[in-house]
Amino acid sequence: MNYEELYGQIRKKKSFLCVGLDTDCRLLPEHIKGEEFPMFAFNKAIVDSTAEYAVAYKPNLAFYEAEGASGLAQLEMTVDYIRSNYPGMFLIADAKRGDIGNTAKLYARAFFEKMDFDAVTLAPYMGSDSIAPFMEYDGKWSVILALTSNKSATDFESSILASGEPLYEKVISTSMKWGSKDNTMYVVGATRPEHLAEIRKYCPDHFLLVPGVGAQGGTVEEVAEYGLNASCGLIINSSRGIIFADRTEKFASVAAEKAKELSSKMAPYIERLK
Amino acid sequence: MNYEELYGQIRKKKSFLCVGLDTDCRLLPEHIKGEEFPMFAFNKAIVDSTAEYAVAYKPNLAFYEAEGASGLAQLEMTVDYIRSNYPGMFLIADAKRGDIGNTAKLYARAFFEKMDFDAVTLAPYMGSDSIAPFMEYDGKWSVILALTSNKSATDFESSILASGEPLYEKVISTSMKWGSKDNTMYVVGATRPEHLAEIRKYCPDHFLLVPGVGAQGGTVEEVAEYGLNASCGLIINSSRGIIFADRTEKFASVAAEKAKELSSKMAPYIERLK
Repeated sequence: MNYEELYGQIRKKKSFLCVGLDTDCRLLPEHIKGEEFPMFAFNKAIVDSTAEYAVAYKPNLAFYEAEGASGLAQLEMTVDYIRSNYPGMFLIADAKRGDIGNTAKLYARAFFEKMDFDAVTLAPYMGSDSIAPFMEYDGKWSVILALTSNKSATDFESSILASGEPLYEKVISTSMKWGSKDNTMYVVGATRPEHLAEIRKYCPDHFLLVPGVGAQGGTVEEVAEYGLNASCGLIINSSRGIIFADRTEKFASVAAEKAKELSSKMAPYIERLK
Repeated sequence: MNYEELYGQIRKKKSFLCVGLDTDCRLLPEHIKGEEFPMFAFNKAIVDSTAEYAVAYKPNLAFYEAEGASGLAQLEMTVDYIRSNYPGMFLIADAKRGDIGNTAKLYARAFFEKMDFDAVTLAPYMGSDSIAPFMEYDGKWSVILALTSNKSATDFESSILASGEPLYEKVISTSMKWGSKDNTMYVVGATRPEHLAEIRKYCPDHFLLVPGVGAQGGTVEEVAEYGLNASCGLIINSSRGIIFADRTEKFASVAAEKAKELSSKMAPYIERLK
């Protein structure tokens, strides 16, 4: 999916919501646990109930790998289900991969060929070698970690360099030269909205993937105020706040309410764009 | 496996060789490709022929994930095979994971519970949250990326901070406080041996996992000269230089020769230790 198509979906749905499919097997509703493919059954119900409010889904690989080969199979089933039933949906593999070039190629093959994801999250520590293979795919996206929403983002990400800039700023400004706004996004946590305005000064056009709304404390309004650009330029993710808002037989309808609530906060910002 | 047990294995075998199981399906010998489980069949033959020269095996997850659920199943078969047949072997999941705490817990569960790895490689970018869950397991190890062997390690890893130190040095000195020499190792590439001596000044006791010997240009002698400590403190990895040295029906015996060659260069250094 290209930049214009993504923006088109956002306009059409008046939403820039991404639902994080952090499908932790231990938190599944009891009546789902007995299914043959419980993670897939849960994801299918969540997707069916939230698809009208969301432009993207983002499964975090950890939750699938924790279940071994069976978990990975259910991830593949989830991707196939969304592709078949919800055309135009943007699919992000939250994998945070980063490895040397010949290995990065294999990860790119896994997420872009073996599975049909549109985007994958990537860790920048090892530099351009570890990102380049993902950028070779037309219409696919590298979502590079910049300033994350967790507390210990201050350990290294915001370390000040001899040049005076924080490390995450160097990560953004350096990696902007590797690709373009058409194949690169950055992860910037909603827990640090004041930094969004700073980032927009040198990175005005790129999409930012913003986790940390809800359970982690960020709000749609703060993120939109500081981060919105002329093509929206934001995808806000919520995971636990939607998918595990209720853990009874009503989980899917409660997830729909939560997704609707977030997307309704987003709609006015989209209506105001040209 | 604890520090003393690992050093004990190194003394017993007079080797600190790790064989990287970067089992790229496209590079398998032709006669293996037709097997029901070709990656496992290949790994089994490599392990059987190299185990007497190696103290560790390190599968890189990318090569298994590229084959989807079937690849992950064959990784699990490989781990089980080594555990059952070669007790005392140190098993490293080369996964380079790094995610927020609740997600990192899941990865830790995947590598330390679902699969019985001794160690997992971790990316430090997101800070202590992303490492702590791995350190909660007794007898398991976090192998943190410090200065990697790839060319673009200079993009960010060796960026100079306002404090005057390079980022990788801050990564090591900061994360040394999170754990100890008994549960933490660092990845330092053999392609930068001069930095090993520098690292040994502030990190004298920890094990270093050193990739980059062979295909990438580093040598055992340089790494040992700059990196050895009183308990060896080194695990040198070779992947392609061993497992794909030959791609005919003789691949396993040629791999054995290559592993023997490297370990024979290591033996004199171990013999000299008290």
